[in-house]
Formats: sequence, structure tokens, C-alpha cells
Amino acid sequence: MHRWINSLVTLAILTCLAPSLVKADEGMWLLNNLPESQLKQKYGFEPTPEWIERIQKASVRFGNGGSASFVSPHGLVMTNHHVGADAIQNLSSAEHNYMRDGFYAATHAEELKCPDVELNILMEIRPVTDRINAAVKDGMSPADAASARQAEMSAIEREAQAETGLKPQIVTLYRGARYDLYLYKRYTDVRLVMAPEDSIGFFGGDIDNFEYPRYNLDISFFRAYEDGKPAETPNHFKWSRAGIRENDLIFISGHPGRTRRLYTVAHLKFLRDTWLPLILNCYYQREVAMLQLAARGEEEDRIAREDLLYVQNGRKAFTGMLTGLQDARIMAQKIREEESLRKVWTGKNGKEDPWTRIESAIKEVEDWYPAYFLIENRRTGLCRTQSLAMKLVRAAQERAKPDSDRLAEYRDASLTSLELDLFSDAPIHMELERVRFQDGLMRLARILGADHPAVVDALGGVDAATRATALLGGTRLADVAERRRLYEGGLEAINASNDSMIKFVRDFDKHGLALRKRYEDTFESVETEAYADIADARFTKYGENVYPDATFTLRLAYGTVKGQREDGRSVEPFTTIGGAFKHAEAHKHRPPFDLPKRWMDGRSKLDESIPYNFITTNDIIGGNSGSPMLNRQGDLIGIVFDGTIESLVWDFQFDDRHARAVGVDARAIVEALRKLYGAEALVKEMTGSTSRMAVAR
Amino acid sequence: MHRWINSLVTLAILTCLAPSLVKADEGMWLLNNLPESQLKQKYGFEPTPEWIERIQKASVRFGNGGSASFVSPHGLVMTNHHVGADAIQNLSSAEHNYMRDGFYAATHAEELKCPDVELNILMEIRPVTDRINAAVKDGMSPADAASARQAEMSAIEREAQAETGLKPQIVTLYRGARYDLYLYKRYTDVRLVMAPEDSIGFFGGDIDNFEYPRYNLDISFFRAYEDGKPAETPNHFKWSRAGIRENDLIFISGHPGRTRRLYTVAHLKFLRDTWLPLILNCYYQREVAMLQLAARGEEEDRIAREDLLYVQNGRKAFTGMLTGLQDARIMAQKIREEESLRKVWTGKNGKEDPWTRIESAIKEVEDWYPAYFLIENRRTGLCRTQSLAMKLVRAAQERAKPDSDRLAEYRDASLTSLELDLFSDAPIHMELERVRFQDGLMRLARILGADHPAVVDALGGVDAATRATALLGGTRLADVAERRRLYEGGLEAINASNDSMIKFVRDFDKHGLALRKRYEDTFESVETEAYADIADARFTKYGENVYPDATFTLRLAYGTVKGQREDGRSVEPFTTIGGAFKHAEAHKHRPPFDLPKRWMDGRSKLDESIPYNFITTNDIIGGNSGSPMLNRQGDLIGIVFDGTIESLVWDFQFDDRHARAVGVDARAIVEALRKLYGAEALVKEMTGSTSRMAVAR
Repeated sequence: MHRWINSLVTLAILTCLAPSLVKADEGMWLLNNLPESQLKQKYGFEPTPEWIERIQKASVRFGNGGSASFVSPHGLVMTNHHVGADAIQNLSSAEHNYMRDGFYAATHAEELKCPDVELNILMEIRPVTDRINAAVKDGMSPADAASARQAEMSAIEREAQAETGLKPQIVTLYRGARYDLYLYKRYTDVRLVMAPEDSIGFFGGDIDNFEYPRYNLDISFFRAYEDGKPAETPNHFKWSRAGIRENDLIFISGHPGRTRRLYTVAHLKFLRDTWLPLILNCYYQREVAMLQLAARGEEEDRIAREDLLYVQNGRKAFTGMLTGLQDARIMAQKIREEESLRKVWTGKNGKEDPWTRIESAIKEVEDWYPAYFLIENRRTGLCRTQSLAMKLVRAAQERAKPDSDRLAEYRDASLTSLELDLFSDAPIHMELERVRFQDGLMRLARILGADHPAVVDALGGVDAATRATALLGGTRLADVAERRRLYEGGLEAINASNDSMIKFVRDFDKHGLALRKRYEDTFESVETEAYADIADARFTKYGENVYPDATFTLRLAYGTVKGQREDGRSVEPFTTIGGAFKHAEAHKHRPPFDLPKRWMDGRSKLDESIPYNFITTNDIIGGNSGSPMLNRQGDLIGIVFDGTIESLVWDFQFDDRHARAVGVDARAIVEALRKLYGAEALVKEMTGSTSRMAVAR
Repeated sequence: MHRWINSLVTLAILTCLAPSLVKADEGMWLLNNLPESQLKQKYGFEPTPEWIERIQKASVRFGNGGSASFVSPHGLVMTNHHVGADAIQNLSSAEHNYMRDGFYAATHAEELKCPDVELNILMEIRPVTDRINAAVKDGMSPADAASARQAEMSAIEREAQAETGLKPQIVTLYRGARYDLYLYKRYTDVRLVMAPEDSIGFFGGDIDNFEYPRYNLDISFFRAYEDGKPAETPNHFKWSRAGIRENDLIFISGHPGRTRRLYTVAHLKFLRDTWLPLILNCYYQREVAMLQLAARGEEEDRIAREDLLYVQNGRKAFTGMLTGLQDARIMAQKIREEESLRKVWTGKNGKEDPWTRIESAIKEVEDWYPAYFLIENRRTGLCRTQSLAMKLVRAAQERAKPDSDRLAEYRDASLTSLELDLFSDAPIHMELERVRFQDGLMRLARILGADHPAVVDALGGVDAATRATALLGGTRLADVAERRRLYEGGLEAINASNDSMIKFVRDFDKHGLALRKRYEDTFESVETEAYADIADARFTKYGENVYPDATFTLRLAYGTVKGQREDGRSVEPFTTIGGAFKHAEAHKHRPPFDLPKRWMDGRSKLDESIPYNFITTNDIIGGNSGSPMLNRQGDLIGIVFDGTIESLVWDFQFDDRHARAVGVDARAIVEALRKLYGAEALVKEMTGSTSRMAVAR
């Protein structure tokens, strides 16, 4: 608390500069650098330190890719159904299909412990830019400078962890111009409380995804436990009794994953012509493979579902991004902006200008980028057992080194998260593994060419199907105890192992490690320094009150509830519960427009006029899913679950003429929980009331 | 008839050479170069000239991509459901969904005329190698030699057409070593007689496609008309009353589309690492786009279905081919074969060896091959209206030139087929057009990069969706009368047109034409000469009794009915009608394993023990679909509809240890037509009997 106020002091100094760059309601703002003058000027709103602290500590980072919030003093967490889906799927089986049928625990005893969910709450931010930059000495090459920074980061993390017991993370802001140390409270005992059927959580499926109007109850509830008891969470959001209307000011507090608004034109063209084409090339194939698996039968459909939803969502999002970048009008604007910014560059130690440095670095990596991307970039392997094998092999190798020399994800500060993943007892379906591995091997060979040395090793002289069958037939890594034995046995156990997947990775992993080193040395280190220089140019031109690109850390966005105009037609900001039934009827209840039986049977119990989904102008991006939507008082009025198709270019550029964030209205959540799911206890815990809330419309 | 016997004389001379290359039942044999000694030696079978003539003239090439046969003296044609599907779809509407519900015309009057189906029957083959080669003068560059050959081909075609009134086609065999003139009788008035529901025609859908055991009634019936009356077809196949058993000798007469067994190793690696990866990259995206369209509603599902089936089938086939080529064991065998063949090369006019010439030509095209492939290779455009616009613009430009200077598909000999396509009144669904065009534009930009000059022109400075909406909103090409007006108006009409799609093509088509010229000059002309040289080396090493790669012209394959062994498990050669019900039950009747209502209701009428689908060792490939399967007498015992997954590598290499052709047994066809479809008249026409045939099992 005290340290956090310190951050606010820094903030006060920085925000005295005029926000000349930012128009509309743009911005994913740092909690320690809020756009106070814009908020005051445009909305007459002045956040108090208490308001900010509550937002910071009631906001939750969920697992590895979503947002959430505390909604009761007893660790109750609300997020999206699609954010919780991985956990719900892991708790499901052929007998208990909670994805399809939903789940509700009326008492703590009935809550189901999730195999590997981690919740992070940001407790404190400390500026560490100067200390990290001091580690870099004059004349160091970009690669050496990067190593020096890494070593300093490792030292800072270790010190902070020892001092606070919290989980440290160094966050690189403005792509290298600033560094902050974030300290998180972590919960790893997380239990499922409530999930609706995925047919209403993801009503309209892939068809309606990223569209509006919408009718989704995209929510799920979990509970953080500490020492086997529900966690105490005094910082949580209160459920608003007031409701919202068009034009109301709305705040969204969450963890936007990644934006690329500060990218140079050369870098954007690399995304447009290399990275996005490649990722879509992979996603299309994965989607087709998962659809084929799912079509085989009911159980296959169940085990493929999570992968399929993930890939379909990504495919649609990346398609929207690519389509935006292919629009010459958007690129022309980026080119104009860059030309104007380049005029500010006055040179630095005789170095080439940073835009040229980035362009040259891209030329260096272009040829072998697909190999880096496919083999190492995501570090997830082609299937779960291969990924586990890779992590076990690397953990053994890295843990034998001093902390500062390790790959970042094997530093001491990261081991708890690694172990949560390695020892998760989430089910591993061998048929899903086989399809993923075989399809992945074929894809690797398809994109890199079958004579690529890594592909030759991956295929091992046979075809993909034969290879997958052989490697998956000889691994015991689906067994948690075996993984624990190998992890605890360290290098000796790994080197002695006869497990087919461990042996495969022992041989194959050299390719990924070499590509990573090459990528870090020739691209990442150059990029970090160049973007730091570009950020300096931006600070010179626009002042320091600009927000950095998203980094999957906590940000605040502001905006208003606002309808849309499309093709001359206006779209109302709110849908209603009754609209869901009409939407289903319009599609003859054909999947994915089939409402759950509970909804069809319970229709008469519902007040169909209650607002259901709604749209706002807040600046969000992937990772914001599950973010609480708050009113001026900081009370909860909804939950973000999507952005419209038009918002996908927000990755590169914000524009709220057409694009919108999409949320579920808190009023509909209460109505459904009460009338359809019999979740009175849950409603009472959130709202503090069993009686019907006064609902304003 | 006389001339055809002439061809047989040539055949007799050629076949005196020993068939040392061919083992097993390999080979897609030319009707004028049958493997007589193998047939005699292995099966004691000697085809008579009458037997060969009947096979030639009762075999039918169906539309642009399948095989079929005459099965009555009155023009009745049998093919696969999936071969006829395009025509069935074109006859369907939201009111009459013949794809979903099936169709049967009990009388001629009820038969439905197809918008644009052409049937070709091979009437005569004339050798023209010497005349074509004589047109090439010493010292000509490969590109000039190709032009000289093209001009001579144009002259030969024109002469033959004037002389015979038949449709001429010069067929390039052994990739350039031999040329034959094929003369076809053509039927363009083709009417639908019978189609089953596609849920039984394609029972098991994409999941079971290329698999075995199978249970598909993959048949449909059409009738050729001449002068408004059923055509007289004295050459037709008789329905066998004998049935078949395991190990019986089977002939398959059809039109295998394309094999690449004579390709050099460099060329195979180009397929493996460039062509197949690229085509799959496109197919995956197209499949996803069609699935998204189909999911939107019932009518969208209907209009997307044909495209979807086409793409899914292609995706699975190309995947099988690629997986085979990625198998280092198969490539090693190809390398050994090539090494042994290269020893035969003794040089020719100081030219580099042909393997090196092909490798060098590939290096020339590799960089811009994707542009050629995407923009020009298939000449199909991104959607139907764009394709029509391109054909109209080119037809106007080409028809203004002398025949010998034209692009091959606009030579006089080809105009009737072109006009059949241009003036087809098959429905054009604008929503399908929009999805295809938008998706196609995005794909073009994704694969070529948005700064590629052709992509800049294609997108026209906006995003793909905006461009597609604008161009499709301003075209009247869905109207046949407008297309006819533009075609008949020639260049003047085209240049004066304000149609958005015509204007687009007038500007854009330069890219395709330039790429085509470049590809023909730098690759095709080199390839033709080099493969002719390689063929000479093969003739030297193996004698002339080797079959050429498939060319979508008539071939005969022989083999036997034979079960499979897989993973130590043996698979029976025949399935039964009863097996279809069991297969549906095993999948809980979940689509695509849902039998039509007619089958479920009519089950008790069926003899469930009747053989249904079966497998043989015959050498087939895509294009063979719908081929008649014949016994020694040349009587019809079944129809080909598929090959197993293992047969997909037959594209490059035949191997019948695991791979099989898959057919529908004639006995099951009669049983189903009679008991389920009430098609007694159809059965009588084919079998000459209304009473139950004696069925041997």
C-alpha cells in the first residue's frame, strides 16, 4: 500500500504533460500513469487513490490468458465462460460433461478443485528502469546488452521475491523504454463454482463470434482458496444496483495481452506479409484437424472441443487483424505517422536511426522466421506430452545453471508456475495427442520443407503417422508421478530415461534452442534498443503521458456505452434476454443457435426485457476477456467478453467510429443465475441480497 | 472403326518389348498399348479387338473431372453421385433440394436437363508425334519450340475437326515423348435420371472418405440426348448376372486425371516442399470459409455444400499425397530409381542432362510460382463471376487472333466447351460469390504479400470485404443474356462495358497473362523437352511397353478383388448392405453417419447379405471416379468411387501391398434401386429384366 502510493507520486509528475497524441477514448492505461487530465476534462471524473487501489487489487489475472475479478469478500472470482473453459474441460469427463451441461456448486464442499489454474493479483509496482539500464555498458553489442539486462532482471526478481514473498515480474514497457517490477499475490488452489452450458456461454459459436448484436451468457465463477479455506478478499467489486444506460462512462480493468500500435511500418509489413500469413496457415490446418477429430463421435467431439474453440477464436481474430493490415488506407495512415515521428529523431551515438535498425533486423530473420515460429516461438510443442517432455528436459538443464544464466521461464521466480503446469493432473487424451502430433509433424514438414534438418529429425525417416504412433506409444508422460520423478531426478534422471518422448526431445531440442538464441541475438535485442529509442522520440513529440503497448499486465480503459452505425443502419447498444430466444428462432434452433434445454423450459420465468449484452467504446484487446466493467463508483455493471470484428485492428490502431467492446450486463447475469440456475446463494454472496435487486433500465 | 484398328497395328509393334519395369498389377494403360503379355502370362487373358472397342466406346468422360459409362443402348449413363454432384446441385433450389433428398425420373419426360454437362466418348486415336516434332527446327530455344508445336497442334486439330466433325484433342504422353490425336464424340444435352440422397451417396462423409470398410451408394444416372431424343449407344456395358468373388480379375476403364510417377526427384521435391504445401495452404482456408458459410443457416448450408465437398475431398487427397512424399523411405526409392536411370543417359546434341535441366527450371520458377499458381494456374478466378469475366475478356481478345496464336483453351476446337460453360444457366448465388471472392482476395494478399503488384491491383486500395462488396455489387454477369451479349459483341462490347467485374478483369488480367507466359517459357517448354529425353532413356532401359503418366484420357487398369491386411488385422474385400446399418448404429446415427429415412424405413425390404462395397488392386487415381468395373467378359460388375488413404501415393508410385481401389458392387445397386428407390424401369433398362436377377455371392 505504501509502496504503491510511491508509484502514484511518479505518476503525478509524468501526467503533467499534455496528451496531444490521444484522441477519442483511446488507451490501455497503466494504473500508475492514468490519463487524469483527459478524464477530468471530458468526463469530469477524478479517480481517488482509494478508487485506484480497489481496482488494482480486485482485478485478477486468470491463468495464462484472461482477466477476471473478485466479486465477494470470500475469494469469489468472476470471469468469462471461455476464459474458464480450459479448467471446466479439465474437470469434465465422458460421464460428467460440465462443458456441455454446465455446473453449479451450491456449497463450498461441492466446489471442484481445478488441476492447474493460477490467479495473480497485482499488489505493487516498482520502477526499475534506471537499475536495469545501468547494467548495460557503453559499446556493448545489442546481444551482450540484452544478456546484461537479463542478468540484472534475474537479480531484481530474486531480491524482490526474498523480500516480499510475492511473485515478481519485470514488465518491459514501451517495447524497452521503461521497466517496472510488478509484484503479484498468487493463488493456485482455485475451484469451480458455477458454469453455464457452453451453448449459452458461446451462443452463436464461431458464426457470431466478434459480431454484434449478441446474446451470450459468457460467464463462469471460481473461488480462490488459501490454506484450504476460501480466500479473504477485502478488495473486491461491489455489484451495482443502478444499472447503466447509453452514454454512461464505463471503466474496464483487465489484462490486454498484446498490441502492436508502436510498431514501425517495416515491422507492421512483416506482420502482414510473414507473421499473420504463417500463423493463419497453421491455424487453418489445426482447425480442420480438430473438426475432423470432433466429427468422429461424441467423445471425440468432447475431447477436441477446447482446442477447436481456441483455434477458431484465434483464426477469426487473426483474420480480422490481417484484413485490417491489408487495407491500404490503414497502412497509409501508419506511414504518415511514422514519417512525422522520424523527423524528431536527432541521432544517438552515431547509431543508425531505429526504424532502419528494425527494418534491417527483420531482413535478417525473414528467411528462417518460420522455423523459429514453428519450433520455438510458443514453446508449446506439437502436443501436450511433447511439451511436457521439453519442459522436463529444459528444467533439468536450466536448473543446473546459475539463475541469471537460465532461460527466463526457468528462473527461480518462475518455477512455481512451471511446477503447477508439469504436475497438473488434467486429463491427457491420447487420441487427441495422436492427432495433434501427427498433424503437427506434417505441418512442420509442409511449411519448412522435408529436407530441413529439424524436420528430418522430427520425422525420423518415416511418415508423420508412423512417427506419431511410435513416439506416443512409448511415452509414460501422461502419468503425473513419472513426470514428478523425472523433474525431481534432475539431469541424471532425464539422461537415464528411456521414455520415447524424452529421448525425442533430448535429440530434437537443439533446433529450438539454437533458433531461440539466434532470434534473440539478431532480432529481439535490436528491437528492444530500437523501440526504446523510438519511444524517446515519441516522448519528445507527444510528452510522457502516452500509454505503452499492451503487455498482458493490468491496464485501465475508459469509454462509454454507445450504439453503432453500420451500412447506414443503427445498432442499439443493448440487447435483451428476450432477444436470445428470437435469435434462436430466426436460426431455427440449428446449432450453434440452439439454446440449452434449461433456457427453453425456463423461458416463462424470465423477464425478457432485461438488458443482456451491450457495447462500449472502451479500448480493449485479447486478454481483456473476463475484465470487470465498472461505473464511476467502481461498482460492477458487467463483464467484457468480446470486441466486434472492427475492433480487431485495434491491435495496430484504435478507432471507435465503428468498433466496440462487447460485454454481458450484470443485470442479466443475476436474472439468469436466479431464475434458471437456482444459484441464489451465489447471487446473495455477490449482491448481499436475496431479494430481487431494484433494476434500473 | 477402321482408323481405330490402324492404332491397334501400331500397338502390336510396340508391345513386342518386354515389360521389365512393371510389377504387380500396376499400370494405367493406353487402349492402343495394352499390356498384352502380362495379361496373358498372369491371368491367361487375351483381349479381342471387339472387347477393346466396346470398352473404348462405352466409356464416358464426364464433365471436367470424372468417369462414367453407358449402361443401356439408350444413352443411359452411370457415374458416381460425387461426380454428378455438381450437376445435381445446379438443378437444386431451396424448394427442390435434390442433393439432400435424391431424385428419380421414372419416365424420359421427367428427366431434368443439366445446365452445363458435357460427355465425351473417345471414337478414335491417331498418332501425330512425328508431325508435331517435325515442326521443331534445330537450334530453336525451348520456348520457340513450344510455340512451333502449339501452332502445329492447332493445325492438326482444325483439320481433324473439319474432316470428322468430332472434337479433337492432342494428348501429350510420357510428358512430351509421344503425341496422339484423340477424337471425341460429344454430348451436351445431358439429363438427370436418378440420384440417391447425398447422405448415402457420401455416407460417412469426410471421416470415411478414402477409408475402408465403406458403405456408400455413390452412384447417379444421367442420359445423353441427341436431337432431343435419347442417344443411341450400341456400345454400352451389359450388367453382369454373375457377380464377383475374391481374386477375380477386374478391369477398370476410366479417365485417371494426373499422376506424377515419371517425375524427377527434384520435381518431386518441388511438389513436396512448394506445390502441395501451397495448395493445402489454400484448401485449408477455403474449407474453413465454406464451413463458416454453411454454419450460418439451412440455405447457406445448401449453397456451400458442393464447394465444401470438393475442397474437403481435395484436402484429404493432397494430405495423403504430401504425407507420402514426406516419408523418407518413399523418396529414397525414387532416388535409387533415378540414379539407375541416369546411367542410361548418353548425351544429346551437347545438351545438359534432362534431370539437371528440370532442376534448373524449378529454381527459376520457385520464387514466383505462388503468384502463378494463385493467379493463373487454374484459370478459375476467385469466384464464378470473376471467372466468367476473365473468360469473356480473354475470349474477345483471343478470338481476334489467328487460331494458332491463341491460348489453347480459346482455339476453335475448344469454343463449344467454352460456350457451354459461359452460357450455362446454373444458378449463381451471390452470397457464395461474396464469401469466395472476399476470402480469395484475402488469401491472395496473405500468400503473396500485400505489396505484390497484382495484390495491390486486386485489393484496389481497400480491404477485401469492401472490395468484394463493391465489385460484386456492380456486375450483371450472373445474367446469361448479358454474358451472351458480351461474348457475341466481341472486343468492342468488352471494351465498352461498364460492368464492374469486366472492368476489374480488363485491368487485372495482365498479371495472369504475364505469369502464364513466363511459366510456359521458363518451365513448361523446358519440362516438355526434358521429359521427352527422360522418356527416351526409359524406353532404352525398359522397352516401349511402359504406360505414360495419367492425362485425364482413357486408360485401362487390371487387378483383382483382394482384401487388406492392416496392423496385423485382415480386412475382408466385401462389405454388405447390412453393414451400413451396423456402421450407422456404431456412430449413433450422428451425421455424417445418418442413413436416409428411406433406408431406415425400408430396411426390412432389403437382403442385408448382399455385397455392397468392395476393394481391388487396380491402379487408379482421381478422375477414375465413376469408372465402370468389368469382368473378363467386359460386363459391368461395379463402379469405382474411391481409393484408400494408402492409394494416394499412387500419384507418385504404385504399391498394392496395402492400397486399394474401392467400388460399389453392381448387385447392391440393383437391390437398392429396386427395393428403396422404386426404380424398376431403370433396372429393367440396364439389366433387360424386371424379375430378380440371379445373384451369385
